[in-house]
Amino acid sequence: MGNDVPHHNQNFLPQLEDIRSAAKRIQPHIHQTPLLRCSTLASMFGAAEFHAKCENFQKVGAFKARGACNAVFSLNDEELQQGVLAHSSGNHAQGVAYAARLRKVSAYIVMPETSSKVKIAATKTYGATITFCKPTLESRMETTASIQKTTGAIFIHPFNDSYVIAGQGTIGLELLKEGILFDLVVIPLGGGGLISGISTVIKALSPSTRVIGVEPAGAADASLSFRNNKIVPVDSPQSIADGLLATIGEKAHCIINRFVDDIVTVNDERIIEAMKLVWQHMKIVIEPSAAVTVAAFLCGAISARDKKIAVVFSGGNAELDKLPWVS
Amino acid sequence: MGNDVPHHNQNFLPQLEDIRSAAKRIQPHIHQTPLLRCSTLASMFGAAEFHAKCENFQKVGAFKARGACNAVFSLNDEELQQGVLAHSSGNHAQGVAYAARLRKVSAYIVMPETSSKVKIAATKTYGATITFCKPTLESRMETTASIQKTTGAIFIHPFNDSYVIAGQGTIGLELLKEGILFDLVVIPLGGGGLISGISTVIKALSPSTRVIGVEPAGAADASLSFRNNKIVPVDSPQSIADGLLATIGEKAHCIINRFVDDIVTVNDERIIEAMKLVWQHMKIVIEPSAAVTVAAFLCGAISARDKKIAVVFSGGNAELDKLPWVS
Repeated sequence: MGNDVPHHNQNFLPQLEDIRSAAKRIQPHIHQTPLLRCSTLASMFGAAEFHAKCENFQKVGAFKARGACNAVFSLNDEELQQGVLAHSSGNHAQGVAYAARLRKVSAYIVMPETSSKVKIAATKTYGATITFCKPTLESRMETTASIQKTTGAIFIHPFNDSYVIAGQGTIGLELLKEGILFDLVVIPLGGGGLISGISTVIKALSPSTRVIGVEPAGAADASLSFRNNKIVPVDSPQSIADGLLATIGEKAHCIINRFVDDIVTVNDERIIEAMKLVWQHMKIVIEPSAAVTVAAFLCGAISARDKKIAVVFSGGNAELDKLPWVS
Repeated sequence: MGNDVPHHNQNFLPQLEDIRSAAKRIQPHIHQTPLLRCSTLASMFGAAEFHAKCENFQKVGAFKARGACNAVFSLNDEELQQGVLAHSSGNHAQGVAYAARLRKVSAYIVMPETSSKVKIAATKTYGATITFCKPTLESRMETTASIQKTTGAIFIHPFNDSYVIAGQGTIGLELLKEGILFDLVVIPLGGGGLISGISTVIKALSPSTRVIGVEPAGAADASLSFRNNKIVPVDSPQSIADGLLATIGEKAHCIINRFVDDIVTVNDERIIEAMKLVWQHMKIVIEPSAAVTVAAFLCGAISARDKKIAVVFSGGNAELDKLPWVS
């Protein structure tokens, strides 16, 4: 367990080799999720083939299990002695709690007091110690800093972390192992960890495949940053896609500028429509943040015409008691 | 296309060989659905392994595509000249319409005027001619008879048909191909076509595997019939599991008495709880009729203790605008 690379060495952008190491490291702890094909969505969008990489079936219900496992399992026992620490209202919290339980170390999670009960309960299931903060970035940072001081736990950033990015990149390796030459891979974009990891793999191994990121119109910092070639945060981002509100990370910004072909935005109405469409026709539960990919085809932001397409369904932790299309 | 066996020869109960022929016949037209494993449900029920055969991912969203395709593709072009005819408020309607479209023949479907809009729309999508009847068995039969007289179309029964049963049985072949020695296979039970076909395969190829049927407490004709050794209909059956209301068919009754180990019942409250549990933990959409299988473990009607279990999720055509657990 663990290896000799100290986790706090973050002075690198992950390369294909790092992602291959990550795949080996996390393989016993995560699912190789299925790639589901849907002919109804393909014909609806005029695509040659429509495939979805189902990270909603991943451990903890989202791709975050990959990055969290890679970060935690990259640390050696000594480094892990005081446990790990994360702040998250959602899937990263569960990912870190899951990985810490596997390593039998403490997990301290800072969650906004407004987090959904389902996600709080799920995080508790993995045995994490939860500290609630006010739902502001300031309170979140302060609470996290104070817990780190008290516990000495190692902080795992949800996306601006080379090991986390490498972990998410393992999705790219699995996608290409399917033996399909995709014309287009479409990926949800929040802090940017997911698309950074996957695009690194795809441009190394399948350079003719286009990679497009999709973010909510109400949190369009990544596309602004992409077009301005510097990080441009957005004030009070808002969207039903609550996993995609974070401002793009520095590492992700660098990688995206190099490897991502385009970033498009979609509005919440289309996200809800897309989410329902997938539940109805693919019979799988995806959360709004995953549905942005399909929304991009629905609103015409991306053309599917005659292409072999893969979208990444990043997670399935939807609130089942309150569906956004039911008023 | 087609073969020389006339469809109206129904004087046999399908054997393993008939089911193998069915598999070959329908293979180009149906999905070999995935078997998904869930460790959360396994540990919740104390099972060694919990697997679900996902017929919610099947063409038309339910296993009915298999039986309908086998029946329609068993007919030769001459027999099919006047088209095919079925009555159904649900998945069988879509199955027959789907199969008829593949064979490029007319499909006449009699649906109760109270059928859900979603299912009417889906049946129309496949190009079927729909005739509405009053929501009584009498009106349904009269309307069907009158359409058969006018059109000369061949009637395809939803379950009391040897070819339909053989088609549903192909699920059993796929299950056993997974190479797992299941202790227990649990199957929803309505008219009995599904469990008849599957149990025929399982008892032929894996006789130590127990097969248990589950039906709603409000439509418990099959368990009554099983225990009384003759068909005992239930007056005005009622359940949220609307695919399981039919009275057990004669062919199914014979086969079940021979091959099924037990039949248990579950109430609607548990069905709803089970349905939500599957959506939440497995991230897949199943309809109430499929959820009876999980409900049987929830209420303790079947013990999962240390067993390798497969359940058949028969369909995923749930009403997304009105979830039964949301009041």
